[in-house]
Amino acid sequence: RTAPSPSPGDYFVRTLAEGVGTIAAAFYPRPVIVRLSDFKTNEYAALIGGQVFEPTEANPMIGFRGAARYAHPAYADGFALECAALARVRGAMGLTNLIVMVPFCRRVEEAERVLAAMREHGLTRGRDGLEIYMMCEIPNNVIQIDSFAAEFDGFSIGSNDLTQLTLGVDRDSDLVAFDFDERDPGMLEMLRLAVTGARRNGRKIGICGEAPANYPEIARYLVAIGIDSLSVNPSSLLRTMEIVRQAEENESRAA
Amino acid sequence: RTAPSPSPGDYFVRTLAEGVGTIAAAFYPRPVIVRLSDFKTNEYAALIGGQVFEPTEANPMIGFRGAARYAHPAYADGFALECAALARVRGAMGLTNLIVMVPFCRRVEEAERVLAAMREHGLTRGRDGLEIYMMCEIPNNVIQIDSFAAEFDGFSIGSNDLTQLTLGVDRDSDLVAFDFDERDPGMLEMLRLAVTGARRNGRKIGICGEAPANYPEIARYLVAIGIDSLSVNPSSLLRTMEIVRQAEENESRAA
Repeated sequence: RTAPSPSPGDYFVRTLAEGVGTIAAAFYPRPVIVRLSDFKTNEYAALIGGQVFEPTEANPMIGFRGAARYAHPAYADGFALECAALARVRGAMGLTNLIVMVPFCRRVEEAERVLAAMREHGLTRGRDGLEIYMMCEIPNNVIQIDSFAAEFDGFSIGSNDLTQLTLGVDRDSDLVAFDFDERDPGMLEMLRLAVTGARRNGRKIGICGEAPANYPEIARYLVAIGIDSLSVNPSSLLRTMEIVRQAEENESRAA
Repeated sequence: RTAPSPSPGDYFVRTLAEGVGTIAAAFYPRPVIVRLSDFKTNEYAALIGGQVFEPTEANPMIGFRGAARYAHPAYADGFALECAALARVRGAMGLTNLIVMVPFCRRVEEAERVLAAMREHGLTRGRDGLEIYMMCEIPNNVIQIDSFAAEFDGFSIGSNDLTQLTLGVDRDSDLVAFDFDERDPGMLEMLRLAVTGARRNGRKIGICGEAPANYPEIARYLVAIGIDSLSVNPSSLLRTMEIVRQAEENESRAA
């Protein structure tokens, strides 16, 4: 596992590229989406040596995470290595079915900065067919979906974070779990705005997170408003496929 | 300061009622709005004895705070005391110009539970002219403004929390301060949805927080979309009054 590398950076790039490349090759030529890193400072700090680099934050869930790090001096070197690994998968390995997804991107201006950094590191949207997607998981992503759609080729709704921020409730806290519910009418409206907004701009949109698997009514709702894809864990795959089939039948009958 | 009281609870109620009553009396009969408690668990824990009662949360800013506490067993007794104090101001003291405001209320169903608890503690919306307002500071408050407007007499936009949740960025963290900006186009759209939504329902809406004082363009924008009131700190009062006067002149000229 720790075979000789010219440098720790080279070891990181090679290992990440081999891992991602294995998945991309398994599904080639079908598209495989890889999400860029979105650890929180407390999660990085829990890794070996992490405490040396990571600041302590009062609220890491809404802190220094996701896209905010990519063009920031404190993580720019790390981001360069992530990009180098993915550029190697698409370039040297030839696995151009790889789509790259940017998580937790707060502002349109931040998206532009991140895309510029990616270009510098060999990941240029459109070159060799590279598609770049964005997680849609911050209320601002939904409210400004038209502007974000100009920057990205597609979206994946992160239902956990989107619920957390739409309702202002920590998704991981047992103490306020009674306030966390993806089925809140406000959340359904946010999902509708996201899906219809993406489609209005000719962009693909899917969802990741447990919501569609946990709540059949959400899976039905998402199909009805025209979502392109759902993520499900293996244990709910068959059940959710049947729900989607029925929902699609209803839609085509109504149309 | 610690004059004999029949009980600690009585001491709390008497002291809070005297403090709030002093302000309400000073402005009588003009309306005075008092916001119910919205400490976070880390803030309560920092008070004398607080650590005995308060749990430790990973992200207190989106944790056990605001309205979520009022009908919850862990704070229901404290909430009863807050309500008793305000009922005394409006009842025994006769200061019926007091308006009560509910902060950080995540869901419509939560609003209903809190209003029911307030009724039990002598604060019934509409009785003796009692008006109950809500902070509009969670994206869900904006998205569901029509439903919240059925429960409350007015709104105050909490621009710090609303920006924090709309953009997903800790308002108190220096590390991500570059991502906190009330002037983001998505925030302006949220402000517009809130103000026009409240007016559509015949509800008053104002704003508290530093945004209108810090950014003249936000003060102008809020006047243009029809906000009823702005909060300003004393040092920016005169400057902001002049900005508002000019903006109102422009509006009446345009109309």
